[in-house]
Amino acid sequence: MAREGGRRRRKTRPETGLKQLAWRDIDNPYRPVEALNEEQLEAISETAFQILEEIGMDFLHPDALEILRQGGAEVESGSERVRFDRGLIKEALARAPESFTLQARNPLHNIHVGGRRINFGSVASAPNASDLEGGRRPGNHADYQNFLRLGQSLNIIHFFGGYPVEPVDLAPATRHLDCIGDFITLTDKVYHAYSLGRTRILDALEMTRIGYGLSEDELAEAPRIFSIINTSSPLRLDGPMIEGLIELARMNQVVVVTPFTLSGAMSPVTIAGALAQQHAEAMAGLTLTQLVRPGAPVVYGGFTSNVDMKSGAPAFGTPEYTRAAFAGGQLARRLKLPFRSSNANASNTVDAQAAYESQMSLWGAVMGHANLVMHGAGWLEGGLCASFEKVVLDAEMLQMMAETLVPLDVSGAALGLDAIREVGPGGHFFGAAHTLERYETAFYSPILSDWRNFESGEEAGSETATQRANRIFKEILAAYEPPALEPDRKEELEAFIARRRQEGGAGSL
Amino acid sequence: MAREGGRRRRKTRPETGLKQLAWRDIDNPYRPVEALNEEQLEAISETAFQILEEIGMDFLHPDALEILRQGGAEVESGSERVRFDRGLIKEALARAPESFTLQARNPLHNIHVGGRRINFGSVASAPNASDLEGGRRPGNHADYQNFLRLGQSLNIIHFFGGYPVEPVDLAPATRHLDCIGDFITLTDKVYHAYSLGRTRILDALEMTRIGYGLSEDELAEAPRIFSIINTSSPLRLDGPMIEGLIELARMNQVVVVTPFTLSGAMSPVTIAGALAQQHAEAMAGLTLTQLVRPGAPVVYGGFTSNVDMKSGAPAFGTPEYTRAAFAGGQLARRLKLPFRSSNANASNTVDAQAAYESQMSLWGAVMGHANLVMHGAGWLEGGLCASFEKVVLDAEMLQMMAETLVPLDVSGAALGLDAIREVGPGGHFFGAAHTLERYETAFYSPILSDWRNFESGEEAGSETATQRANRIFKEILAAYEPPALEPDRKEELEAFIARRRQEGGAGSL
Repeated sequence: MAREGGRRRRKTRPETGLKQLAWRDIDNPYRPVEALNEEQLEAISETAFQILEEIGMDFLHPDALEILRQGGAEVESGSERVRFDRGLIKEALARAPESFTLQARNPLHNIHVGGRRINFGSVASAPNASDLEGGRRPGNHADYQNFLRLGQSLNIIHFFGGYPVEPVDLAPATRHLDCIGDFITLTDKVYHAYSLGRTRILDALEMTRIGYGLSEDELAEAPRIFSIINTSSPLRLDGPMIEGLIELARMNQVVVVTPFTLSGAMSPVTIAGALAQQHAEAMAGLTLTQLVRPGAPVVYGGFTSNVDMKSGAPAFGTPEYTRAAFAGGQLARRLKLPFRSSNANASNTVDAQAAYESQMSLWGAVMGHANLVMHGAGWLEGGLCASFEKVVLDAEMLQMMAETLVPLDVSGAALGLDAIREVGPGGHFFGAAHTLERYETAFYSPILSDWRNFESGEEAGSETATQRANRIFKEILAAYEPPALEPDRKEELEAFIARRRQEGGAGSL
Repeated sequence: MAREGGRRRRKTRPETGLKQLAWRDIDNPYRPVEALNEEQLEAISETAFQILEEIGMDFLHPDALEILRQGGAEVESGSERVRFDRGLIKEALARAPESFTLQARNPLHNIHVGGRRINFGSVASAPNASDLEGGRRPGNHADYQNFLRLGQSLNIIHFFGGYPVEPVDLAPATRHLDCIGDFITLTDKVYHAYSLGRTRILDALEMTRIGYGLSEDELAEAPRIFSIINTSSPLRLDGPMIEGLIELARMNQVVVVTPFTLSGAMSPVTIAGALAQQHAEAMAGLTLTQLVRPGAPVVYGGFTSNVDMKSGAPAFGTPEYTRAAFAGGQLARRLKLPFRSSNANASNTVDAQAAYESQMSLWGAVMGHANLVMHGAGWLEGGLCASFEKVVLDAEMLQMMAETLVPLDVSGAALGLDAIREVGPGGHFFGAAHTLERYETAFYSPILSDWRNFESGEEAGSETATQRANRIFKEILAAYEPPALEPDRKEELEAFIARRRQEGGAGSL
């Protein structure tokens, strides 16, 4: 079974009341579920190449156009349209690593990205936050910090995929300074930096250098931060995203290209068509990273879902979404690249729908062999809200998923023939030696599920899982203690933030 | 896509307001998820044989002992203990069919059992029923009939796996007459008969003969009813179950042997040990069926889960449960027999826990390639309660699962290169011809999920999925119309019930 973290972690993380799984590396022992056969994979790949060869993609930044032109792509004169020869793409993508390790400030929280490893992230980028008492409100800094504390406290959350909630009470020009500063002081896990122009990314890189205690040369030696690059589907990559992509690739940091191919809106109304477009957009963005720096670490992102054709609203955790996740994993593996998926749902409240849509997404991600699962804990309303109760609900579901991926022990001792002989027909195993030796750690112990019978549950007030989650997230916050940070680094970080704040941060957007 | 049922069904089933999937045969296109490698499968199989050879199993009925003795098993003198040579077991089980069709009263509702086919059943055998308004109450006849109406109305429910709720207001001696009578008059799908002694099974067979309009010879020509035979784990089969097993096998009806191997209570505290015991008990019970009638249709049942080691309460939809379902499917396929699993959960209320535990069970069943999924819709509280809202919640989850099993269309038309060309970078697909041709049927349309945005949901009263399910189950009941039943059969059935009632039914239990 998994073991408790080493020396450093015990020192910096006192035991809380929460009996959770220890931090562990999770590998998927099962064969991926395959939604496409070889011929179908080939057809999607071929269509994606045709899209990039015949239609092309718009890159809304002169630097990208220059890099792509020099790299051998065909930039249409007087236009932002770029067409790619498939040979160029194949050659570029062959240079990207199949796997790499994202280093956390606390080395015990490093995450390996690739192969059979699966890492779960916190909710990211929600404009609103909610909990049962406070209701739904626009994102603010206090909520932002509390989501970071939850993500740091829960061992099943391996990284932060962005700001859990957008703290709109912080000035836009300096918000990134406050938020990255919080990542470094309130957590010691891997975090994400938004690609909202060059300045913000350079600030994030410098803060990471300070927080990790590195020289400038050391910073580019290993991947430490990552950024989600969303295409503006169909077939467009915006300027601020391009600036982030270029700076990160240049510094050997991780670029995750995730096309936002909502089937029926920004991509064809068929899953196959949406996947072909996803594949084209991902390959184009990823090719740019490899032209910036051959070998730069990248991830193939899949976010294909469908819209509700009645209202145009995006839907998540649908049967279409799950199959697109299975297929997305196959397309990423075809390129020998790590795969990113999500734990998404469209429910407006932390109810049964939120749970079953998240489960459908999670099974798609896990059996699609995703290496990074964005929005792993806390996502609600198709991403419009980060919910404190949903964090706990998702943490339980993620822990259950992690346990489902633990290979069964089928040793002679586990098979227990002697115990069966000892108990014999008609007996019971409660008192058997085989049971007594193992019962404390034999089974997964939940953090949220209530297995008491109806009468006991009624005596305890008949809480729903959501009501229990409310109690639990407050208990976790009450027990939170910040991880260690060397005082000199903290001082340097604060001085940097103060200086950049005085300079006006990223200026007006 | 699936098509609406044929002529007979349209005549007997008017359109209701519910926009649900049409009745369809569901085949799993994905490879099963395998929790055990070949060596581990062999180890479990070997342990199961050792259990039956060395320890043996108790059969608490003289008829079984006699059949087993004549069949070559070793019956311990003056005891109910039976030991089986593995050669006898292999020879007996090799005679059982790999697949068969259970014929429904309405042939459009026949279900094939075996191969990649998956069939979902209604909740069964709960002592209590509940809905939001009425709360939780002991099972009664009115609730029983309403669950039958829901199961008949919902196309995703393929069969009835027992009484959805136990109608304790009906006299025990004649309850089976009322309940089987209701199956035949309120539904036209496949149903289950309890093995509570010979009399009840013979009554069920005779009522089935009448309801289907068959001669006695015709009755044994094809499987039409089935019964779950639970072992009294560890290693015991009770008398009433044995009587049912013998009569059904004799009449070529379906016996599903399902050991009740709760790990830590009635089986070893390890999943491997529980599976070995499950395999032994299932093989023993199934061997008996083949000694009664070689070739009798059978199903290998898996119900292995774990108890909460703090309270001893059974838990379902746990990581242990899911892996046991994956492994159970492998063990059944090793014997070339159909596999039965369940949609189980331990929640006391229709909340997020009920949803995620059911999802964990369902993914175990579906990716374990179960052919019969018992308790598919309505199960709550580890089986102690049948919930009307849970029926709707589960029907949504089952429909989503069915859609997830539909192979993706990757034809040239589906790939939509022309549509992508037409829309081009920066456009949208809402008005594309490719979209307009397909949008009405492109995506799964939910019966329960609410995809409206938060503000619209708030205007609509911010219902949870459970509250919506309450509204929906009442709408389905209001729209219900009974299926056709030939008047002469109905008359004969009523006369039979009246006569058997006068005779005292099954007598006092």
